[in-house]
Amino acid sequence: MVQDFIAGIDIGGTKIALAIAAAGGEVIERTSFPMDACRTPHETLNQTLEALESLAEEHHGRLSAAGIGCAGPLDFERGIVISPPNMPRSWRHFPLRSLVESRLGVPVLLDNDANAAALGEHLYGAGQGYTDLVYLTISTGIGGGIIAGNNLVHRLGEAGHVTVQPDGMLCGCGARGCLEALCSGTAIARRAREYLLAGRQSKLREMVSDVKQLTAKTVADAVRENDELACTVWREIVSFLAIGIGSIVALLAPQVVILGGGVAAGAGELLLQPLRDELNQRVHIVSLQRVQVLQAGLGTDSVLRGALALGTRALQHART
Amino acid sequence: MVQDFIAGIDIGGTKIALAIAAAGGEVIERTSFPMDACRTPHETLNQTLEALESLAEEHHGRLSAAGIGCAGPLDFERGIVISPPNMPRSWRHFPLRSLVESRLGVPVLLDNDANAAALGEHLYGAGQGYTDLVYLTISTGIGGGIIAGNNLVHRLGEAGHVTVQPDGMLCGCGARGCLEALCSGTAIARRAREYLLAGRQSKLREMVSDVKQLTAKTVADAVRENDELACTVWREIVSFLAIGIGSIVALLAPQVVILGGGVAAGAGELLLQPLRDELNQRVHIVSLQRVQVLQAGLGTDSVLRGALALGTRALQHART
Repeated sequence: MVQDFIAGIDIGGTKIALAIAAAGGEVIERTSFPMDACRTPHETLNQTLEALESLAEEHHGRLSAAGIGCAGPLDFERGIVISPPNMPRSWRHFPLRSLVESRLGVPVLLDNDANAAALGEHLYGAGQGYTDLVYLTISTGIGGGIIAGNNLVHRLGEAGHVTVQPDGMLCGCGARGCLEALCSGTAIARRAREYLLAGRQSKLREMVSDVKQLTAKTVADAVRENDELACTVWREIVSFLAIGIGSIVALLAPQVVILGGGVAAGAGELLLQPLRDELNQRVHIVSLQRVQVLQAGLGTDSVLRGALALGTRALQHART
Repeated sequence: MVQDFIAGIDIGGTKIALAIAAAGGEVIERTSFPMDACRTPHETLNQTLEALESLAEEHHGRLSAAGIGCAGPLDFERGIVISPPNMPRSWRHFPLRSLVESRLGVPVLLDNDANAAALGEHLYGAGQGYTDLVYLTISTGIGGGIIAGNNLVHRLGEAGHVTVQPDGMLCGCGARGCLEALCSGTAIARRAREYLLAGRQSKLREMVSDVKQLTAKTVADAVRENDELACTVWREIVSFLAIGIGSIVALLAPQVVILGGGVAAGAGELLLQPLRDELNQRVHIVSLQRVQVLQAGLGTDSVLRGALALGTRALQHART
């Protein structure tokens, strides 16, 4: 008997991850390949879909639906990629959902990667058992997804652009003092670099051959060695993060805030513990005794698992 | 034939409004009386329920369900008033929903007044036809309700406590620089008063016999007369409001923000127009071309109409 599989696709700026799963959600097989900016999105999409079809064939099955998590912003309702800053420019205004639908001939759901990751964490990760959560990814940028009353909030909100310093640093979006402008991995590295260029002493100087190579990971490593400058940067970041997350928590009162993405995954409790302390000092709304902050449970798989869940939903929608 | 009515109750710090409606939502009759802090909540509740039963009898019907909008914070799931700052202290930890349920013998839904108002505006007011909106009430304090994907988000979030000035004015909640601490009616009056006490010239001095009597309305009136000091206060308030609402809009990308409550209703376009300008300068997320800001369509009735809608839902839940 031919088995029906769900396809999941995670399209990011650096790589594309894909997987097939059984109807119950069990992942059967997965693979990934780097995003090649020199290829057109059509070529990349062909490669992706051929890989998925091969996986299905190898396992004596066929694809019955697909879910896609893609770097945002995108138009959820029309299924179109808009202008993701971390993707090749050729992906702008790419009608991703309809192309996958017509190519595979199966129902498809597309959502931005942070929403997909929130869904993945809610169903299979650190968010299991909670009805209301906020997922934030801290990596090159900052994104977020919201689950309210067990439902994914499918709006195109951008949690990274909550204001944390009203007249602060200019953000890539054109506004000032956004969470992303002050707390992304890029921002953490830049902040450390600025201190170094201003002449401050630090172990960071010996950790890289050129200050341009500084990353959030270098800063976190130096914090673990109690480097004074790195600790200053870290405290500032934690403080800004607490302002932004504090506003989100005040507005939504989620049961839990889940942090994922490269920076949060790499730093772990080095980031989470001071953040919890600062949040509990800062947020005083009556309905919430303490702000619970957890690390993502699926590591780098949050988006892919969420994409598979979107595929399952696409199938359910098609059947009703 | 005996007709079935839905009862709606709006419990606020200064008055209690109530109404009965037909099954289709049409309001049949309404009344209100002042909140008397000297009476126990049991006495006040008895008066309310007797008034509702009289209304139903006069119209040859009986109550089949009730919805209540009450000043928050409250425990939605358990139906308990927690500790509303603007209500008599005797209402703290008052098990409102179960008492109304057992006294009337009908299903009851309770939600905080801002959530009820968001629901009322969504179904009958300025929010009709939108799937995603944020309702904010600006009066003595600031509260908010969220409709996402046509559903009321029943969390206990407190929109008034989004941070707009990280190290700013201490808020009643214990945090610093909350939207409510800087932009509520109370805050507007206090800000003007502080400038006057510091010796600034203004028409405001002639508009009240004592600066203690200054209200947000006095300040708005002086803005209409181009009073320089009042205009300064107004610009500051609009700027802080835009930071707070900007963060909410960035996070949720609602189709529309609806402003209600005494201050917003009294000021109207005097507040809304500069707020729109400032928001459109401040918010740059790609998914939203412009931030739409509308005045509440139901005036002081948003909560009561929302309470009636909650009553209808209580009936539907009981039947399924």
